Amino acid sequence: MIFLDNASTTSLCDKARDALIYHLDHTNGNPSSLHNYGNEAKRVIEDSRMKIAGLLDCSAKEIYFTSGATESINTVLKNFWHAYPKAARRILTSTAEHSATTETCKFLKSNGIEVINISPSENGRYSDEKLREALGSKPGLVSLMHVNNETGAITEPRKISEMIKSICPRAKLHIDAAQSFGKFGLSPYKDGIDYLSASAHKLHGPKGVGLLFARRNALLIPLLHGGGQESKLRSGTENTAGIAAFAEASDEAWNWMINGDLSHIKILRTAFLKELSASHSNYLVNSPDDGSDYILNISFIGIRPEVLLRCLDSEGIYVSTSSACSSRNRKPSRVLKAMGFDDERASSAIRISFSRYNTIDEVTIAAKAFVKAVSFL
Amino acid sequence: MIFLDNASTTSLCDKARDALIYHLDHTNGNPSSLHNYGNEAKRVIEDSRMKIAGLLDCSAKEIYFTSGATESINTVLKNFWHAYPKAARRILTSTAEHSATTETCKFLKSNGIEVINISPSENGRYSDEKLREALGSKPGLVSLMHVNNETGAITEPRKISEMIKSICPRAKLHIDAAQSFGKFGLSPYKDGIDYLSASAHKLHGPKGVGLLFARRNALLIPLLHGGGQESKLRSGTENTAGIAAFAEASDEAWNWMINGDLSHIKILRTAFLKELSASHSNYLVNSPDDGSDYILNISFIGIRPEVLLRCLDSEGIYVSTSSACSSRNRKPSRVLKAMGFDDERASSAIRISFSRYNTIDEVTIAAKAFVKAVSFL
Repeated sequence: MIFLDNASTTSLCDKARDALIYHLDHTNGNPSSLHNYGNEAKRVIEDSRMKIAGLLDCSAKEIYFTSGATESINTVLKNFWHAYPKAARRILTSTAEHSATTETCKFLKSNGIEVINISPSENGRYSDEKLREALGSKPGLVSLMHVNNETGAITEPRKISEMIKSICPRAKLHIDAAQSFGKFGLSPYKDGIDYLSASAHKLHGPKGVGLLFARRNALLIPLLHGGGQESKLRSGTENTAGIAAFAEASDEAWNWMINGDLSHIKILRTAFLKELSASHSNYLVNSPDDGSDYILNISFIGIRPEVLLRCLDSEGIYVSTSSACSSRNRKPSRVLKAMGFDDERASSAIRISFSRYNTIDEVTIAAKAFVKAVSFL
Repeated sequence: MIFLDNASTTSLCDKARDALIYHLDHTNGNPSSLHNYGNEAKRVIEDSRMKIAGLLDCSAKEIYFTSGATESINTVLKNFWHAYPKAARRILTSTAEHSATTETCKFLKSNGIEVINISPSENGRYSDEKLREALGSKPGLVSLMHVNNETGAITEPRKISEMIKSICPRAKLHIDAAQSFGKFGLSPYKDGIDYLSASAHKLHGPKGVGLLFARRNALLIPLLHGGGQESKLRSGTENTAGIAAFAEASDEAWNWMINGDLSHIKILRTAFLKELSASHSNYLVNSPDDGSDYILNISFIGIRPEVLLRCLDSEGIYVSTSSACSSRNRKPSRVLKAMGFDDERASSAIRISFSRYNTIDEVTIAAKAFVKAVSFL
């Protein structure tokens, strides 16, 4: 198996797997229980929280564990709607967001919230002009992805927060970091981020665990009411083992990041594109040059991507058409359309996404299989 | 370690543990991905759904996987608020519910929903008179626990649904089955249940996984908007391994239930009470005789329960003061107060909760330790 669909999910790294199994077996009390067995679980969760807060350079009290980025995103947007009814009258987001954001915004819109959408240019970026105009409408909340899940286009949080500061200083900034957490440097305070969402399973942690960073006093109304876990802002018995595994996976990701993970990914991407460019395939790269090297979005013109995907599938090579979530609907990619690409190009895209565990050999084999399949089709 | 706090959480059973680890290692694709590796994960989830639907005797399409009962309960109550604004004007619940229900109801109340609370009698049951009166106010939704998490008091869903049918037939019935799923027979259709919530970790499955049964077309507005997983009604990448482990744990629980799990629990409970009654301890049993044998709530008059808990803790015996969630606030138990017990009794309660893996030896040792600690204190 050659797994090049790492933007949809990743394998569990050894440290995360070890932590998960260890805590399932040894720290399985209810963290809310007063006895030692409960307290041990509580301690594991608080240690995990401190570990992740250390990586993000924020206070442990600002990290809330959730079931994943989708829950975190829903929590931010609905908290805003309930807690800041005046400020939440207007939310600024983009047409290229993950469906967790777009669908939540649709729901808010049906409840009377004004949702302003900006669209990226062909390079996946939002022009300063568009941003300035949109921010000029004084939104209460701005919600954007750091790294786009389909194309890898990067939106620098710091740039957005600086524009917010000068144009609409009361607006809060939420960053969907599902594709960047553990891959690109992120520091909520230095970057001017108020809320940040991430999932463990995108960085070699387990599924079913995520986090929400929220600045102190920025989160007021929980999405999940109940027993009062997570400082009363996210109820439900904590998934101790999953949280510990998430912290280990984050720590490991940060280590790799510091030690040149990204240059390895760049080598993989370059190798893939080199193999492709040496062929006679008719393709267009949709990912911007200055985007995340982890994600490579390519349209093979005239070829139905699900057919290409099946060809590769039969050889044990796994890639994706657009995002995993929207892969079953077979419509032109909403994100590529938002970037201004035509229906044909937006309907023939394949997403190849790398991880630090992919090797050049794997990527070269995969690229050759692509070339073969494309010429056959 | 003698773990008698199984109402707060349970150890992972072997089948659930094996399934969890197997699927983490072998079925770790994103279930939404189109390729084989994703499809395998999708298949595991659908198999798990069918397995659980088989146990509940409902359609697989009526089972939604969530992060736990707290999320399920929030989903039901908030779906009702959003999807049925007219019907949701009035919700009937009780003063003895788990905080997932009471806190969500508080939130709904602050948003203009009328919440009617009925209180149980000293036997933990709702009198027919009170029920008839409350149902007469024509609530749109009735939300009650099957087995109370602090006392084990049982509310028969079928009895409630039959009263609903005759008094306010348009009302929907939500049952919080966190303490009964896999322990007592439940059949949503036979019992007239419209929504049912449960957590895996209460029946020897993993933390971070739960389910919501909702009759076809009864769930309309998701709590988590996004990628459209779970028939578009619960978004977020599915926790495949956790879901598979939940299904195995459920299957195992049903097997034990059929093969006399409950009579084993009754023996444990009787052994504990026998040991206690042979002593000179001053105690009052708060759990009703006709409640769940799994939960035994006892007040040791004049003794601070957290001190008693510490004494037992030092001998590796784990029990609880009231529920785990509320154990840190040290107020008189809200549930015992609701049953009409005075502050002293409601402030001195200990909850002993059994599992099928507890032995008579364990329970006898624990009871002796109780007697010793109580006489010492």
